[in-house]
Amino acid sequence: HPFFVLLRQSSGREGMIAACCKHSCTLCILMHQGLSQAAGFLLCVEDFEVVCKGLYRALCIREKYMQKSVQRFPRTPSQYLPCAPWYSPLGPVFTPPLKDGQDPFETGNLAEDLGYHLEMKDGVVYIYGDKAAVGRKEPKDLPYPCLEHFVDDMNFLLALIAQGPVKTYAHRRLKFLSSKFQVHEMLNEMEEMKEVKNNPHRDFYNCRKVDTHIHAAACMNQKHLLRFIKKSYRVDADRVVYDSKGKQLTLKQLFQQLNLHPYDLTVDSLDVHAGRQTFQRFDKFNAKYNPVGASELRDLYLKTENAINGEYFATIIKEVGSDLEDAKYQYAEPRLSIYGRSAEEWHKLASWFNRHRVYSPNMRWMIQVPRIYDVFRSQNFLPHFGKMLENIFVPVFEATVNPQTHKELSVFLRHITGFDSVDDESKHSGHMFSTKSPKPEQWTSAKNPSYTYYIYYMYANILVLNNLRRQRGMNTFLFRPHCGEAGAITHLLAAFMTADNISHGLNLKKSPVLQYLYFLAQIPIAMSPLSNNSLFLEYAKNPLPDFHQKGLMVSLSTDDPMQFHFTKEPLMEEYAIAAQVFKLSTCDMCEIARNSVLQCGLSHEEKAKFLGENYQEEGPQGNDIRKTNVAQIRMAYRYETWCYELNLIAEGLKAE
Amino acid sequence: HPFFVLLRQSSGREGMIAACCKHSCTLCILMHQGLSQAAGFLLCVEDFEVVCKGLYRALCIREKYMQKSVQRFPRTPSQYLPCAPWYSPLGPVFTPPLKDGQDPFETGNLAEDLGYHLEMKDGVVYIYGDKAAVGRKEPKDLPYPCLEHFVDDMNFLLALIAQGPVKTYAHRRLKFLSSKFQVHEMLNEMEEMKEVKNNPHRDFYNCRKVDTHIHAAACMNQKHLLRFIKKSYRVDADRVVYDSKGKQLTLKQLFQQLNLHPYDLTVDSLDVHAGRQTFQRFDKFNAKYNPVGASELRDLYLKTENAINGEYFATIIKEVGSDLEDAKYQYAEPRLSIYGRSAEEWHKLASWFNRHRVYSPNMRWMIQVPRIYDVFRSQNFLPHFGKMLENIFVPVFEATVNPQTHKELSVFLRHITGFDSVDDESKHSGHMFSTKSPKPEQWTSAKNPSYTYYIYYMYANILVLNNLRRQRGMNTFLFRPHCGEAGAITHLLAAFMTADNISHGLNLKKSPVLQYLYFLAQIPIAMSPLSNNSLFLEYAKNPLPDFHQKGLMVSLSTDDPMQFHFTKEPLMEEYAIAAQVFKLSTCDMCEIARNSVLQCGLSHEEKAKFLGENYQEEGPQGNDIRKTNVAQIRMAYRYETWCYELNLIAEGLKAE
Repeated sequence: HPFFVLLRQSSGREGMIAACCKHSCTLCILMHQGLSQAAGFLLCVEDFEVVCKGLYRALCIREKYMQKSVQRFPRTPSQYLPCAPWYSPLGPVFTPPLKDGQDPFETGNLAEDLGYHLEMKDGVVYIYGDKAAVGRKEPKDLPYPCLEHFVDDMNFLLALIAQGPVKTYAHRRLKFLSSKFQVHEMLNEMEEMKEVKNNPHRDFYNCRKVDTHIHAAACMNQKHLLRFIKKSYRVDADRVVYDSKGKQLTLKQLFQQLNLHPYDLTVDSLDVHAGRQTFQRFDKFNAKYNPVGASELRDLYLKTENAINGEYFATIIKEVGSDLEDAKYQYAEPRLSIYGRSAEEWHKLASWFNRHRVYSPNMRWMIQVPRIYDVFRSQNFLPHFGKMLENIFVPVFEATVNPQTHKELSVFLRHITGFDSVDDESKHSGHMFSTKSPKPEQWTSAKNPSYTYYIYYMYANILVLNNLRRQRGMNTFLFRPHCGEAGAITHLLAAFMTADNISHGLNLKKSPVLQYLYFLAQIPIAMSPLSNNSLFLEYAKNPLPDFHQKGLMVSLSTDDPMQFHFTKEPLMEEYAIAAQVFKLSTCDMCEIARNSVLQCGLSHEEKAKFLGENYQEEGPQGNDIRKTNVAQIRMAYRYETWCYELNLIAEGLKAE
Repeated sequence: HPFFVLLRQSSGREGMIAACCKHSCTLCILMHQGLSQAAGFLLCVEDFEVVCKGLYRALCIREKYMQKSVQRFPRTPSQYLPCAPWYSPLGPVFTPPLKDGQDPFETGNLAEDLGYHLEMKDGVVYIYGDKAAVGRKEPKDLPYPCLEHFVDDMNFLLALIAQGPVKTYAHRRLKFLSSKFQVHEMLNEMEEMKEVKNNPHRDFYNCRKVDTHIHAAACMNQKHLLRFIKKSYRVDADRVVYDSKGKQLTLKQLFQQLNLHPYDLTVDSLDVHAGRQTFQRFDKFNAKYNPVGASELRDLYLKTENAINGEYFATIIKEVGSDLEDAKYQYAEPRLSIYGRSAEEWHKLASWFNRHRVYSPNMRWMIQVPRIYDVFRSQNFLPHFGKMLENIFVPVFEATVNPQTHKELSVFLRHITGFDSVDDESKHSGHMFSTKSPKPEQWTSAKNPSYTYYIYYMYANILVLNNLRRQRGMNTFLFRPHCGEAGAITHLLAAFMTADNISHGLNLKKSPVLQYLYFLAQIPIAMSPLSNNSLFLEYAKNPLPDFHQKGLMVSLSTDDPMQFHFTKEPLMEEYAIAAQVFKLSTCDMCEIARNSVLQCGLSHEEKAKFLGENYQEEGPQGNDIRKTNVAQIRMAYRYETWCYELNLIAEGLKAE
């Protein structure tokens, strides 16, 4: 009989166990014995209780930080575990799609100015009714972060992931999840395929898929960039495009100065593709952003600020957008950089965005902040880390408070759906984040703060910002850092507390407890195995298929098509290679595509259109196979499996 | 110093060893010690002599069979080894490309009829001046095959590949070739890249690449077929397209009968893609050729003979051809089937080809013959195996002798460049080919002959045919069977004797001697790792990178885009995945692309245009980096390495 096929779609704690199988077949009975084993035999009773309490508290911590910052936490855990007191059903606010004829750059509908006063204190922007309120220490009634609590919670989690019984338990549960999926596959593969085959007019090709992690500066493939450079030369050879220390250069003169002729340029001489030389060499990889090794060409073609106001870069991005629109079912979330070097960056970027009307219905924008305070500090661009945070966040708060006086930026922010934190995670920082860490304004040394320090202060400001923006009826931002690509596993812990979802997550391999927590909380992970293959991990060793089997919520993304991909459709290339090498079924691929839509910053309206009206329901009820092409059997399996694990923890809590 | 960079481009036996390094660096000295080790220490002197004599004779055997059948054998071996007496510099004849305005279906330039008499004897077509000459046993003066010699040579090779010292020697040499390439790469990778980067206007994208192994019936990808079916329904719903046991059905009626509506069809329900279910299941794979599992749709869309005279199939193929023309640098060699079930097949196929003008400058055609005599015999379509051979070959001989009376077929043959032999190699045949095997006319049992039996009789007829056609100034055919995808290694031995080049070759993994011989004779191998991944061997375990490193002449091909590929450019997908998973460099990819052009049936004129005027020269002299983007350092390394191995054998022969 089809194992796990029939099950109640929502069930109480005891109900759940019985529900997974209507018949009492040996296999299901064996699986239930698995429960008692996990609950009793393997761990002694006290240990089991400790483990469950620990995992429960970890989930509560994440729920708290997600709710407070207007980010997402699933509803199902609270059906099994006592609902946290701070539970609020309010979620992130996304800008709705344009109505017919609506201008994406319209400024007529901006909210009124409030004239509030902003001031950064200990690295966090506080909002006051007026300047006088600052002295009275009476900020506006908004949730503000509390560093002490955060550090307490972090220390609890640090202890938890190192605790022996918790590690054993998480390890065993993960192993169980793997085996269970394999059993599911063997028994139900044909059933899933039948469902998918009988689903009319929908297949992997016309399922919506979102490139959940891609950098704007590398969002075109190498061939596209090459063609663009050649075309620009044919059209614009005599146009002044470059300012070389005050000397105006035409495109022709620029190429002459570089001793190049665009006609001779090839993908090889362009040299923007990662190869064997970049493996384990993030530094070399970064240098690849310079076409022909010339930073002048990077400035001209891949930057928003230059003598032509970033026109070429905008044009290339719009071409990529138009390719996505042609492909119809593909979307992308490119990242643009804010460095925090100066307070002007936001306005310049917004002006570029508005001037060139960089809009595509198939793109949603994100802001990435490179963790390179040390570079700016050593060149004396910044007096302390606090200034960097100010440069990154104050302009956004200002535009939120006074949209009328910051029209361009306000429009731009409407198109932004989240923040990313980027850089080489393998660079170790000696710093250990604690309550004793210098406050950002006191961080004057040229040393870079730790990953966690960066993450905390980004989260802290996004928390205040999101609450303010929600109050004002504006869209809010998700925090979606690069995390777990390399470096310490504490990165993944910081993101567990602060991030709506992450990119990479490779290092979850190394911590069973965190991996299990990412499963329990269903934290989306945008994975890029082709990028990893060039930088950190060979393709065949990528944990994506393992995570996917266990039921972690993974999506596929390209990271940097310019550097990693060969074909005209990088996202399809990414899916195709994963399908081939990992032997994914149609159902697997469609599930991953569905995950990508759930993970991304597309609006509620779009998600409802792409996934079905009930997409916010968890489990099979939230799936519309006609839209997603994911078999209901698969959805039921995933949901049952998730509930089963949550229920185990609930059992442990009850035992107490 | 750049190791192996400088070397004489042609050198005598002794010269060679000194030439690989101008300086006396430790590494080169160590490599030379490798020579003495191979020649002396590892094997005793007598064994070494025996090995070299054996390998030498094996190469002579291949040279003989290639020369006799107007196929190719490289020239370099004869510079090191005593030139065989039968050496003739005449090679295959390819149809030149069309001149401007020339009609590919023109019949005005066909040769005159000769009225010769044809008769098959012992499975081989003999040509007589007239019927009377048959009685006199006076066939025309053409080379005819000799079964006894063939079996002698085969038995010699069978013994050779099982001989202990030969196996040790080949194994050690292959290991050496691997390590040597790795050393080359470590030392010269940057030099190669520099060369390639400095090569103006040429990169991997605009290097010519040929899909050297692709089946016409699966040459479109699944999405293309789906779109075509939907489109045909929109346009042709009321057209009579199918003959169901005498009942004429319109397209609408046909779909009604199948209980389908094309609007609902998806890639999933079409179900032509290989998945996990096809691994190790060639039978299931073959069934995938039926869209929606309905042989009616295969008949309608993927066959040349049906109620609409194969119009849809022709249209799809022409669309694929036009995609290739758009891509400009991609070519394909699709296979069309001749089954040998009836004598009419050739004329029907030629008529389809001419009627629908199935021509693209980016396609060269091949004929595949499935090894399914047993199926036809058991259904009593054929009295004996000889009849099958007659059906396959006599029409071609007839059209060659009397082109004027077989105009359509003669035109078709002008576009054909070779024969392929196809089927599941893993099916074992109990038969062992020898002089005592029944002659084809006596092969009346329903058992299928062995792979070698099939191969010999195809080769034997192609030999006569090619000599006849060369005499008449017509294009000749290459024999390019599927070989070594699965089954016994004797398949690879038969192809070593008879085939210009092969498809797959996976099983060379299993026989060091054959692998070494394929290297020494530089026999091209069209490999399809994505196809293997779905059928016989996981992607990461594919020997392609290993063969390529050792210097075997491998190309990349798609086999069946409909079943294996996801994107619009299957050949690029094949290259991209290989590049990613096997971490190929640009130079590697361009070398493989160059191999594909050398291997294929494109004309001399096209090859000269795509690879450079001197492409027939072996070694760096034959390479024009401006066309191929293959570094001269790589070419020099390959040539030096090849010469070195040939020279070792020469040393062994001299020792005697």
